Amino acid sequence: MPRRRFWLLSVIAIAILSTTILLLSYNNNNQSLARAQDNTNNNFSKKNIVGGHTPGYGILETSGDVLDPISLNVTIKDAVVDPMKYLREFNYGRVSELPNGTTLREFTLVASDDKVKEISPGVFYNVWTFNGTIPGPTLRATEGDLIRINFINNGSKSHTIHTHGIHKAEMDGVFETIGAGGRFTYEFTAEPFGVFPYHCHMQPLEEHITHGLYGVYIVDPKTPRPPADEMVMVMNGYDTDFDTENNFYTVNGIPYYYMHHPIQIEEDRLVRIYLVNMLEFDPINNFHLHANLYQLYRSGTSLVPHEYTDMVTMSQGERGILEFKYKFPGQYMFHAHKTEFAEKGWMGLFLVKDMTSSSGGQVYNSTPTANNMAATVYSQGQPLAQKRGGDI
Amino acid sequence: MPRRRFWLLSVIAIAILSTTILLLSYNNNNQSLARAQDNTNNNFSKKNIVGGHTPGYGILETSGDVLDPISLNVTIKDAVVDPMKYLREFNYGRVSELPNGTTLREFTLVASDDKVKEISPGVFYNVWTFNGTIPGPTLRATEGDLIRINFINNGSKSHTIHTHGIHKAEMDGVFETIGAGGRFTYEFTAEPFGVFPYHCHMQPLEEHITHGLYGVYIVDPKTPRPPADEMVMVMNGYDTDFDTENNFYTVNGIPYYYMHHPIQIEEDRLVRIYLVNMLEFDPINNFHLHANLYQLYRSGTSLVPHEYTDMVTMSQGERGILEFKYKFPGQYMFHAHKTEFAEKGWMGLFLVKDMTSSSGGQVYNSTPTANNMAATVYSQGQPLAQKRGGDI
Amino acid sequence: MPRRRFWLLSVIAIAILSTTILLLSYNNNNQSLARAQDNTNNNFSKKNIVGGHTPGYGILETSGDVLDPISLNVTIKDAVVDPMKYLREFNYGRVSELPNGTTLREFTLVASDDKVKEISPGVFYNVWTFNGTIPGPTLRATEGDLIRINFINNGSKSHTIHTHGIHKAEMDGVFETIGAGGRFTYEFTAEPFGVFPYHCHMQPLEEHITHGLYGVYIVDPKTPRPPADEMVMVMNGYDTDFDTENNFYTVNGIPYYYMHHPIQIEEDRLVRIYLVNMLEFDPINNFHLHANLYQLYRSGTSLVPHEYTDMVTMSQGERGILEFKYKFPGQYMFHAHKTEFAEKGWMGLFLVKDMTSSSGGQVYNSTPTANNMAATVYSQGQPLAQKRGGDI
Repeated sequence: MPRRRFWLLSVIAIAILSTTILLLSYNNNNQSLARAQDNTNNNFSKKNIVGGHTPGYGILETSGDVLDPISLNVTIKDAVVDPMKYLREFNYGRVSELPNGTTLREFTLVASDDKVKEISPGVFYNVWTFNGTIPGPTLRATEGDLIRINFINNGSKSHTIHTHGIHKAEMDGVFETIGAGGRFTYEFTAEPFGVFPYHCHMQPLEEHITHGLYGVYIVDPKTPRPPADEMVMVMNGYDTDFDTENNFYTVNGIPYYYMHHPIQIEEDRLVRIYLVNMLEFDPINNFHLHANLYQLYRSGTSLVPHEYTDMVTMSQGERGILEFKYKFPGQYMFHAHKTEFAEKGWMGLFLVKDMTSSSGGQVYNSTPTANNMAATVYSQGQPLAQKRGGDI
Repeated sequence: MPRRRFWLLSVIAIAILSTTILLLSYNNNNQSLARAQDNTNNNFSKKNIVGGHTPGYGILETSGDVLDPISLNVTIKDAVVDPMKYLREFNYGRVSELPNGTTLREFTLVASDDKVKEISPGVFYNVWTFNGTIPGPTLRATEGDLIRINFINNGSKSHTIHTHGIHKAEMDGVFETIGAGGRFTYEFTAEPFGVFPYHCHMQPLEEHITHGLYGVYIVDPKTPRPPADEMVMVMNGYDTDFDTENNFYTVNGIPYYYMHHPIQIEEDRLVRIYLVNMLEFDPINNFHLHANLYQLYRSGTSLVPHEYTDMVTMSQGERGILEFKYKFPGQYMFHAHKTEFAEKGWMGLFLVKDMTSSSGGQVYNSTPTANNMAATVYSQGQPLAQKRGGDI
Repeated sequence: MPRRRFWLLSVIAIAILSTTILLLSYNNNNQSLARAQDNTNNNFSKKNIVGGHTPGYGILETSGDVLDPISLNVTIKDAVVDPMKYLREFNYGRVSELPNGTTLREFTLVASDDKVKEISPGVFYNVWTFNGTIPGPTLRATEGDLIRINFINNGSKSHTIHTHGIHKAEMDGVFETIGAGGRFTYEFTAEPFGVFPYHCHMQPLEEHITHGLYGVYIVDPKTPRPPADEMVMVMNGYDTDFDTENNFYTVNGIPYYYMHHPIQIEEDRLVRIYLVNMLEFDPINNFHLHANLYQLYRSGTSLVPHEYTDMVTMSQGERGILEFKYKFPGQYMFHAHKTEFAEKGWMGLFLVKDMTSSSGGQVYNSTPTANNMAATVYSQGQPLAQKRGGDI
């Protein structure tokens, strides 16, 4: 302990000395980091980057004055994703039937790596995306469908699509590098049922992940899960100063977004979240639901829940399905129970609407930032089937 | 790798240079950090603190020469908690019956934030507490009871009580800030059965947690679990130099306490631990039991165990019930299997007493520090009911 | 955020200044770190070590130019282990029958701490081993057998054997320190069935672990698990510069080994992996299987799987059994889904052979580094018994 304190004091003293010395150079740096006036693709000069990035790998520089992300909203037109649209949007592909009766679902995913988008108020970041957003589109199919993903690499680097799930080696997106301008068609049967990440698997992997090349792929069981208000949540982060530590943490791409725009759900209505952790650098992430517990289906590969809780811990690539109902109207937080992640953006709100009031969709505790989603009346959730999935 | 070594050598060299320079100032600092002579509330002047603390937030300075925590004991009268008393103490509240037959349990929790207590031999820390101890009292009820918590904020900062479990939005202790001197009555039905943390939810959250505002809340199933020697264990840490890294790790508030004071249990007697992880800053914590395995009930929300193991990993807010019996007398360690945590205090001993000897409670391997708990003869544990809890 | 950037720039500036100053001393250091010409035991002088090591504890200095571990192979004769031999080697002990019909299995484990072995191409490290390898030999028995481990400490430090599982206090390898040259006989009944780590439990624990004193102990259920191609995988790391951070991550002792030497398995043949995490310093480790999912039996103490997934997270000492079949031939990765670990060596390949071709064992996608393991035809895996293990 005394030695530890000794070192600590040393480090503090060095930092104080050096910050004094550095005041001049910092002021200069600050100007060069000033917010870019134009967020189109080509007016960012490529530079070698300090920190964890491969030298000469051509990473675009992050820009932006850091504004207060709690009190300000991003402008959706510049943002890397519209989190409210992303939340409940499922892409079922272009559907046709093969001669043998199998359903074919065709998807198109286009990779790019030169966009600069707003990821937090005032912070513009070089995003690498599938179809222009972080996370990429949610692909959805039913067990046994034939999946065809037409992959177009419009980026300047090599990229691939690696999907968790069962498929042939040559469809795994690891050794089949797709160069700039290249194309590849991934084809495989949707199996098993569950929730899976898909992501680029090119080296250096942490750059392709931390810049945003991932999304969610859902395989429904043949007998569908009970009706529910379904949504997708991806936990991620952004390392905007390239020091291999995240500066922002989010669910669905933008820090604090669902604090400004609470997710409206209905009293006594089953909610089902497809949750995936794609956080780079940090060893784990987690999900805490307030004033409630959820049934947790790890990896989504079972029809009987593994646990009834309000906390789940996931390392990168882990995922699950969370099911719950709120029986009281009001506003409820959900967030990482790793305090640092929560306080750097990974928190949100559910706004539970009182469905028993005369208006049939009265907002209990309205907020000025609440989005104007229509109050649809859903049917009630049903009891779960008693089948455990994925037996060999 | 060569670059990494290069940097490492640089950092070492800087540290060596600067520690030489700092020898003078360190000696001065050391005197100002000397052990306070009087540990009452008001003789610590409030200062702005370096490190992770909010500037001007009024954190009291930690003091004390760091003594050898393995060879020395804390003095219980100055200590932040009596871990042996805390271990098996359950607060069932003031009980009455409502006209509709429901059991009402009333608790009083008083927050304070100005106490300075001994958390390890010679180390005095500004503790923020519920009812004066870290962890706060263990609240216990049965599923379906009405819980009423009279909360009195005697601190100088705002505080709340956020309980994991099911309740109304306005009872969640998040948006209803209770200012200095304020009072609030939390009321909710105890559901579901399980083990839960309660904690202050004020921002900046990591300060309210790392200073000690948390405890355990147990909801028993209506059909009680089988008889057992029941105990509560909370895993926590202390960041005494405010660098957002823990300097001490403990189970039940004081590092190494149960190494000096082994927990006496009985051969072949079912032990049930209600385990909660409230460790701030570190991503995970874990619990290893020596020479035995335990049945693990994650979150305590099931009556059938999830796993039979000697290791469980929990991120902050995760918890569970552990059940086991020792069939051989003797002394057995339990500790974090994260070596750093164990070696900074998170380790303890079970002393399993030989119940078959003529004295009916012979201590197999006595230690001079063993506490003088009476050897009660309990009845044998019974088989577990086959009900899975918490279905929606 | 601005303050964070300020500090970051300060730290970078200090490092730039100091590295310039240090160029001279670094060059000198580099020569003293040059690869040792002779890797026998005694020509390394003992020095006090910087970083996390106990002063005067006599740790041998790591040596070696760091070569490219991806493009180069270790020479097995100098290596700390032959990972291909280790993979499928089970030590069932010297077997005899006691008068009461119990099977006695006797093992001999010899600890040493003065060997210097190649752990990655060009990197020689002071390894502390059981029977000369990292990991030590895999001990295997059946539930109910009597285990006798004759432990010989040929090291210069004290060591013990601490086995996870059920046994008497005096067989736990914690308080019974075995000094240099000492011997001890551990004796206990093999219970319960499952997969367990064994490791030295001497303080400072992280040194005994990080230097290599661990292995795997398997207890088979009385009714054996279905036939399978069984293998053992231990996840570990090496801190070669003693800064309490790992420089290399591996499965089975040598970074990238199974990338050069893919593990040959057969199409449609059940594979069973006994997986143990012994990684020191990092909070968690994990295991991702490509293009497939596995049935996960946490701690190996159940005959029904806990989860069907391609990702499991384990903190130190956690372990499990993984079962899967590949239905398509080809080459498939398995690796940590913590990118840093993967890119520092914790990755490997399965080479799934096409068993339906005329040759009866055709290698689908041969590599020049593939090992020459004979293609044995195994019988098909059988359905799992429906018994949950480990009930109290």
